[in-house]
Amino acid sequence: MAGSPRRAAGRRLQLPLLCLLLQGATAILFAVFVRYNRETDAALWHWGNHSNADNEFYFRYPSFQDVHVMVFVGFGFLMAFLQRYGFSSVGFTFLLAAFALQWSTLVQGFFHSMHGGHIHVGVESMINADFCAGAVLISFGAVLGKTGPAQLLLMTLLETVLFGINEFVLLSLLGVKDAGGSMTIHTFGAYFGLVLSRVLYRPQLEKSKHLQGSVYHSDLFAMIGTIFLWIFWPSFNSAPTTLGDGQHRTALNTYYSLTASTLGTFALSALVGEHGRLDMVHIQNAALAGGVVVGTAGEMMLTPFGALAAGFLAGTVSTLGYKFLTPILEAKFKVQDTCGVHNLHGMPGVLGALLGVLVAGLATHEAYGEGLDSVFPLVAVGQRTATSQAMHQLFGLLVTLTFASVGGGLGGVLGDRMPPSPSPSPLPPPGLLLRLPFLGSPPDPQCYEDQVYWEVPGEPEDEAQGPLRAEEPDTRA
Amino acid sequence: MAGSPRRAAGRRLQLPLLCLLLQGATAILFAVFVRYNRETDAALWHWGNHSNADNEFYFRYPSFQDVHVMVFVGFGFLMAFLQRYGFSSVGFTFLLAAFALQWSTLVQGFFHSMHGGHIHVGVESMINADFCAGAVLISFGAVLGKTGPAQLLLMTLLETVLFGINEFVLLSLLGVKDAGGSMTIHTFGAYFGLVLSRVLYRPQLEKSKHLQGSVYHSDLFAMIGTIFLWIFWPSFNSAPTTLGDGQHRTALNTYYSLTASTLGTFALSALVGEHGRLDMVHIQNAALAGGVVVGTAGEMMLTPFGALAAGFLAGTVSTLGYKFLTPILEAKFKVQDTCGVHNLHGMPGVLGALLGVLVAGLATHEAYGEGLDSVFPLVAVGQRTATSQAMHQLFGLLVTLTFASVGGGLGGVLGDRMPPSPSPSPLPPPGLLLRLPFLGSPPDPQCYEDQVYWEVPGEPEDEAQGPLRAEEPDTRA
Amino acid sequence: MAGSPRRAAGRRLQLPLLCLLLQGATAILFAVFVRYNRETDAALWHWGNHSNADNEFYFRYPSFQDVHVMVFVGFGFLMAFLQRYGFSSVGFTFLLAAFALQWSTLVQGFFHSMHGGHIHVGVESMINADFCAGAVLISFGAVLGKTGPAQLLLMTLLETVLFGINEFVLLSLLGVKDAGGSMTIHTFGAYFGLVLSRVLYRPQLEKSKHLQGSVYHSDLFAMIGTIFLWIFWPSFNSAPTTLGDGQHRTALNTYYSLTASTLGTFALSALVGEHGRLDMVHIQNAALAGGVVVGTAGEMMLTPFGALAAGFLAGTVSTLGYKFLTPILEAKFKVQDTCGVHNLHGMPGVLGALLGVLVAGLATHEAYGEGLDSVFPLVAVGQRTATSQAMHQLFGLLVTLTFASVGGGLGGVLGDRMPPSPSPSPLPPPGLLLRLPFLGSPPDPQCYEDQVYWEVPGEPEDEAQGPLRAEEPDTRA
Repeated sequence: MAGSPRRAAGRRLQLPLLCLLLQGATAILFAVFVRYNRETDAALWHWGNHSNADNEFYFRYPSFQDVHVMVFVGFGFLMAFLQRYGFSSVGFTFLLAAFALQWSTLVQGFFHSMHGGHIHVGVESMINADFCAGAVLISFGAVLGKTGPAQLLLMTLLETVLFGINEFVLLSLLGVKDAGGSMTIHTFGAYFGLVLSRVLYRPQLEKSKHLQGSVYHSDLFAMIGTIFLWIFWPSFNSAPTTLGDGQHRTALNTYYSLTASTLGTFALSALVGEHGRLDMVHIQNAALAGGVVVGTAGEMMLTPFGALAAGFLAGTVSTLGYKFLTPILEAKFKVQDTCGVHNLHGMPGVLGALLGVLVAGLATHEAYGEGLDSVFPLVAVGQRTATSQAMHQLFGLLVTLTFASVGGGLGGVLGDRMPPSPSPSPLPPPGLLLRLPFLGSPPDPQCYEDQVYWEVPGEPEDEAQGPLRAEEPDTRA
Repeated sequence: MAGSPRRAAGRRLQLPLLCLLLQGATAILFAVFVRYNRETDAALWHWGNHSNADNEFYFRYPSFQDVHVMVFVGFGFLMAFLQRYGFSSVGFTFLLAAFALQWSTLVQGFFHSMHGGHIHVGVESMINADFCAGAVLISFGAVLGKTGPAQLLLMTLLETVLFGINEFVLLSLLGVKDAGGSMTIHTFGAYFGLVLSRVLYRPQLEKSKHLQGSVYHSDLFAMIGTIFLWIFWPSFNSAPTTLGDGQHRTALNTYYSLTASTLGTFALSALVGEHGRLDMVHIQNAALAGGVVVGTAGEMMLTPFGALAAGFLAGTVSTLGYKFLTPILEAKFKVQDTCGVHNLHGMPGVLGALLGVLVAGLATHEAYGEGLDSVFPLVAVGQRTATSQAMHQLFGLLVTLTFASVGGGLGGVLGDRMPPSPSPSPLPPPGLLLRLPFLGSPPDPQCYEDQVYWEVPGEPEDEAQGPLRAEEPDTRA
Repeated sequence: MAGSPRRAAGRRLQLPLLCLLLQGATAILFAVFVRYNRETDAALWHWGNHSNADNEFYFRYPSFQDVHVMVFVGFGFLMAFLQRYGFSSVGFTFLLAAFALQWSTLVQGFFHSMHGGHIHVGVESMINADFCAGAVLISFGAVLGKTGPAQLLLMTLLETVLFGINEFVLLSLLGVKDAGGSMTIHTFGAYFGLVLSRVLYRPQLEKSKHLQGSVYHSDLFAMIGTIFLWIFWPSFNSAPTTLGDGQHRTALNTYYSLTASTLGTFALSALVGEHGRLDMVHIQNAALAGGVVVGTAGEMMLTPFGALAAGFLAGTVSTLGYKFLTPILEAKFKVQDTCGVHNLHGMPGVLGALLGVLVAGLATHEAYGEGLDSVFPLVAVGQRTATSQAMHQLFGLLVTLTFASVGGGLGGVLGDRMPPSPSPSPLPPPGLLLRLPFLGSPPDPQCYEDQVYWEVPGEPEDEAQGPLRAEEPDTRA
């Protein structure tokens, strides 16, 4: 039946209908639930005696914009290192993040800012929604090149819900501190994506081996992503902290941690490289691990030395992960991690959570003074000891790993696919929730190839379309 | 006489002399008229009892910087999609915007901030000048590839004046609200450029057809422009609003509108694409229409749902415009719109103006409370009803369309050119104001070709200069 | 002995060991000396009655982020114009700047913010450290392509110390004003690099002539650097000024100066170009000279006209420098200035210092009012006349030129290298301080070639590595 006009029409309508359906649904939910908050509503803001200078906008919006750059430019271009997958890397980042911002406004709003039956939005909800989009894009990095946009939208639909629940459990129920999201964003996003990638394992992926590398200019595009992520990470970690010293200290710690992860990455990359040469993959990714590793502890009294030490550790661990662990993950554990999110977000995220356990456990009234109330309010009011706070932090990590793994497993089933060719391909475990076989994922030889989803221009003086004239996405089920 | 040493010298001096003349003129006018305002003058600021924290700088400058990024990176790289016109796209954006900032400081200052015979400048005038530069660059997008830098500078000279007048009529005389410039920037810039493009119609433009498309990497460069425009559009629309809830709400509305135009664009692009494939032209442009469409109403109590609905509508209309309207515009109306500014700025701008009419007409004291005074001051003081404000908004749109069309027509005549070859080329209507035939525009086969204006490096291992060794710009008259 | 396993191991360990050594040293020094300041320490900030809104973070951090973008994106990509040296340009910028931020925190802290045996850090020290990184990267521009990463790290080690001393002498001892660093950053960085390049003179450099140019896309990558530098330069110059009108005025002056240098650059580039064509080298660089030239005077009552005039002068001088002076510098003075830092930072920096002399000398109580206390505190309290302040400014320039020249000479000796081939190569003058012959610099034919230091991917459909399969860096001594 493949190739019949009816089926072709079905394929063609897949992405449009899903976009329209999701947009329609969020629009209706917005109409019912979402309202301006006190800081964005004309009547509410002017009711009472506020100075306009007190509006939250002036304290949070510059940080928000930096986070926004990281999500759309940073993640998008970082993934554009693949030689023939730049349109998809940047374009699907754009699509998924745009949807995640809407959907997460609803999910996070339901858990965090529901008042009188309404979700109230402003710059803080904008930052939080961008954070959720960040987690989704980390998972995207693990399955990059092997999944179609419709699958990815469904992944976003599911992941955003689980992200919201996990975040609610950690921050609201457990009283865990995690401003920059070592746990809620990086660990969650990474292990969600890795489990998903495991379920979607493709034994024949070497068929697209020639497309898995970079070319000279694609590596430079990726460096645009890297550098913008690196520059703005201090804003990322500090965007949702308490105002004043907390935000200031978080930015400072992240700044130092990143310089150390950069030095560590260059050192280790040259050390393990052939002939002492540096590897762009390490520089593009592991140098950022310093931002991930202080995502929890950056807000605390980590000390500038602590920031350097943590960043250096994260950079070296991450580089070694790219060199030695990624091949083992694929060979032994059948996890095909396109961008190495395990090295950039997974391990540094777990390290960051553990660092948070340590630094929280060491908190004293002397070190924090009256500021203890901002950083560890439950400790400040005597409801918890520092050790108890540390145990809660550790438990938060375990909760996050559980939610991420279960979520990635569900998502994988949701993205379930049939073998695209007669070659033997192990079926994923049967789906518990959803089985949506109509979703087109690319056949193995056309992974990492933009032409499956995009009109791709010819070369300047050569109308031929390169070695592979891609066919349409595989949608047989 | 063509090719004679004297004529060659004339050609060579054209751009330098024009730059020097314009720079000299603005410098003299600056010396005579432009002064620091109260917030930038050492003596004035310290006269009286201000806290430094109250300086306008801290409320407007971050927004200004975001707008500045949009104008220079956003517009510049968005137009770099052409395979052999990246130098001109980015470079002429740089030149035109730099001149527009100076010239608009004078023109807008004359209309808006003339006190005691002097124009007073500070961060607000910087934002306003950048807005004018944005309008000029929109017009540039319509004629991209078909005009030389000297012509474009004269276009900027004229357009800036008309922009200033139109803005003055709308904002000061008519009391129209248009913070993000759906009318004053997008509608004005688009129709100015489209009428200009009509007057400069080239029937033989298919001679440079091979240069009108993109290549893989030029599309990625263009995505840099797109993404930065998308990210910072909330700052663009909110940069000149009243402080407090107004600025905050505008940013929020724009943020949501853009997410919806992105989903709408992906849906429609795949729907109308061959084999359901996405088209980079749509993603690069139509996804931004959500920013344009809330340029007027974003400041108002549009509601988050309203923002989503407006953005979605704009994204779909814009995508359909690229697919179906652009070919008709050229074939039937002889408008060659290189970047499709009619789809990204024209139609969404008009839609945005109409949305402003609607939302203004619905304004009530209940919805805005005391905040009505900031958004609709004339309604708040009882000088107008909401319906009357709506009618004024509508009239503002008509005024804008008139100024833009007349201006573009004048500009076209100003950029008047003779046919570059014996091929029959209809002459533009005779000029009313200016006829400057010495201005070099490229001959048809060399449109969209950097080598006409730039020293272009050879290819890495191949010293040959590509298929077309361009000659100098056509300056015969 | 060359090529023996032992020597190869030594080569391979050079960069890693140096990174680890430097990181270890700064980490220990951080542990001993560096502490949070009052604005970043939880206990200190909450001790006393501050409003969180008063935290320095909210006044300086947006400027800091803009400066951070300039250092990492701006300088990094500006130097990526070379066709086969993009990885090194962006990557070594990343490495050097990351180290400079740490090291300069210590050096500048020792001179400027040592209290009770501790260096106190916060957003101001972050800005200052980024400024030092900027100076280092300017010097890097002079020797780009001819030095290896280990050499460059040692250059950074030395230059940061001298930068800190020079800055201390000027700002603290001499009471010189230089907010945007015309002297301390641009003049210092440029002449340090130029003297260094002189000492490292390579008579056989034409062996890598085929790699010294750009290609089409590398020029577009470089324009990313240019445009971000241009956009954020107002933040750079205003980042460390006094709050209020001072910061506001500095940003405004820089904004105008840059527009004029852009117009001047386009005018002169077309004027001196073959057939009136524009040269990308000029646009990428000279258009930025307007930011450099108001680095000292931008804070003063320069007037908007003064900013235009200064910017225009700088743009034209810089363009003429690229056209006529750079070839002479190499031919007559044996200074091989890869990026033309003499034209962009050297001459405009000196001009900026002289402009500062002039504007300081013209300062009156009438023009500055009570604001004189912020701009020229020593003049305000009657300790100096304006003329005396001007003389101090001039003396500051001379001090800077001295420190830069001596430092570059020392650095050159430090980076001393043996001739890579039997060709006659004049030895640099014998080292005064350090002679570290193990440091690998590339042999002449492999200058400007990434493959010496990086794993470089093959071309899309061609596994061959281009014309030059680079060997390892030259480390013979």
